[in-house]
Amino acid sequence: MTGYRVAVVGATGAVGTEMLRQLRKRNFPAGEVVPFASERSAGRRLNGAIVQALTPETIRGFDLALFSMGGARSKEWAPQFRDAGAVVVDNSSGWRMDPEVPLVVSEVNPDALNDHRGIVANPNCVAMVLVLPLRALDQVFGLESTVFSSYQAAGGAGQKGMDELAQQVPVLALDVDQLATDGSAARRKVQHAIHEDTLAFNVVPLLGDEEDNGYTDEEMKLKWESRKILGLPELRVSPTCVRVPVMVGHSIAVRATFRDPVDVDAALRALDDFPGMVLDHVPTPLEYAGREEVAVGRVRADLDDPKALNFFVVGDNLLKGAALNTVQIAETLHARGLVRARAAV
Amino acid sequence: MTGYRVAVVGATGAVGTEMLRQLRKRNFPAGEVVPFASERSAGRRLNGAIVQALTPETIRGFDLALFSMGGARSKEWAPQFRDAGAVVVDNSSGWRMDPEVPLVVSEVNPDALNDHRGIVANPNCVAMVLVLPLRALDQVFGLESTVFSSYQAAGGAGQKGMDELAQQVPVLALDVDQLATDGSAARRKVQHAIHEDTLAFNVVPLLGDEEDNGYTDEEMKLKWESRKILGLPELRVSPTCVRVPVMVGHSIAVRATFRDPVDVDAALRALDDFPGMVLDHVPTPLEYAGREEVAVGRVRADLDDPKALNFFVVGDNLLKGAALNTVQIAETLHARGLVRARAAV
Repeated sequence: MTGYRVAVVGATGAVGTEMLRQLRKRNFPAGEVVPFASERSAGRRLNGAIVQALTPETIRGFDLALFSMGGARSKEWAPQFRDAGAVVVDNSSGWRMDPEVPLVVSEVNPDALNDHRGIVANPNCVAMVLVLPLRALDQVFGLESTVFSSYQAAGGAGQKGMDELAQQVPVLALDVDQLATDGSAARRKVQHAIHEDTLAFNVVPLLGDEEDNGYTDEEMKLKWESRKILGLPELRVSPTCVRVPVMVGHSIAVRATFRDPVDVDAALRALDDFPGMVLDHVPTPLEYAGREEVAVGRVRADLDDPKALNFFVVGDNLLKGAALNTVQIAETLHARGLVRARAAV
Repeated sequence: MTGYRVAVVGATGAVGTEMLRQLRKRNFPAGEVVPFASERSAGRRLNGAIVQALTPETIRGFDLALFSMGGARSKEWAPQFRDAGAVVVDNSSGWRMDPEVPLVVSEVNPDALNDHRGIVANPNCVAMVLVLPLRALDQVFGLESTVFSSYQAAGGAGQKGMDELAQQVPVLALDVDQLATDGSAARRKVQHAIHEDTLAFNVVPLLGDEEDNGYTDEEMKLKWESRKILGLPELRVSPTCVRVPVMVGHSIAVRATFRDPVDVDAALRALDDFPGMVLDHVPTPLEYAGREEVAVGRVRADLDDPKALNFFVVGDNLLKGAALNTVQIAETLHARGLVRARAAV
């Protein structure tokens, strides 16, 4: 049998499940796909395969390993897969800023893959969605600074993030008047553990851990990852990350300034021509939940600065924001001969 | 009998109802409060008073008229109340940019009331919430430019805006999987007439009418009203207005730049000292629905520009954003002798 032997690590989570689906849907040339998960899930059947636990024995003999676990487990297990012969494409934050690890969005900087040393990182789901329009516009006008305000879906925190929102909504929906007149009491009627506050009928302007400078790690990722993916080490980024009661689909309001004066028609052409992206005058996250394209709309010249542009970006955080890009990286590794089907030889 | 004779025009709407409540709650020195509404509601009883229709006869003899109707009806009827002897405080957009009409936030520019000519305007509910922290910071550092990304509640479109969201939520909540995997189909399961798109489990980055420059009238209000209220005709504003599935409570992510370098501790002191405002590290609109204070949090120095600050503002759009400020303006008019109880003489 030919084709790659592929491990999907973290296969029972929201992103891992979608990775399995994308491999099938896109006919990735896999001879065998083996799901891995925590010991709790090991032994379960998933798409006809038995879920494996991570052990020094079970991880042998893979060509590719697509990871979607937390950063700490990824730091532990990705090198072991690599040392056992696989190329790892990792969706955690564990490797993204390692100078020896390419951080790749398939339409934006695929050439970074050419120098991989066995581990490739998949960006944060918000940074991923953002860099498509930013690259399209940077090519024409020269990107210099950005202000990002995000509207991030519950699903950005995985299946548990969606479950927590789904459990809160019916409880709070029972008393709509209370939501309007005594929100403080409504807010305390439900528990929250995944999100920083009650998310149903609310927005929560903190997600992730706060660093000493007052920004969250999620916000700082937007600065560091955008700079690395775009190859713009001087790019200025003012990020605010906010959770909203949406299941899937991250949105970002962007103000960007450029080296050159901006022409809106030229900007629209550049955005329209860029792969993986569509123009949609009023893109909403619900419309794009389950769709592979990143959508850009509300593109308008700044009111005061001729070198600035305001626009709104939407993308499915589980698809282009995570699982789709991971599989697209695997496809590019395959197309460029950067991974070898040793196991199948 | 002493006290003012007060008309509340548009008394059956979300804001009008709250105006009536605030007049009672704050013990405004009214001898009589008469509710007015459309002919459809005329004759109904509201808080023991009979709702009046607007006619040349019914509007006579008032000292104060608090308006919460659409701009067109306000343009028609406010001058008639004024000509019949009342001071009008109007919550519509009809008068705000008239150079002869003061546009007032009670904590920010009460002195503008001194020159009123019978009509005073209450600002847009987002501008209202924004100008409190902006004034506090402007006093210390000298405000020069702003980027606003709003998270606006359904209630900003009145009771109908809340009703539309409340009707959509249970329908879409029936199939959480569809929200994540085929949002486009979920989106079409419900009707929308008040909001620009399905609002449940979604965010909608367009509200109001688009102007030729691509901005909505709602977004342009943030520029023109902020400049007028703050007395900063050169203030640069980059606005993006987005509707979110929250019942009551507008939020705004703000990046502001200043003439002078910013010190975060001095900024926090200025915000904390400002009337009508509280510091809350992670303010959420649900927590402040039904509360009178505007809350400011996530205050942090910009990552790259020492003259810039990022922060997050939350306020109840029906209270400080509308009805509370209207009654506070009436109180200031009373305290300064700028309205006379002619009717009661």
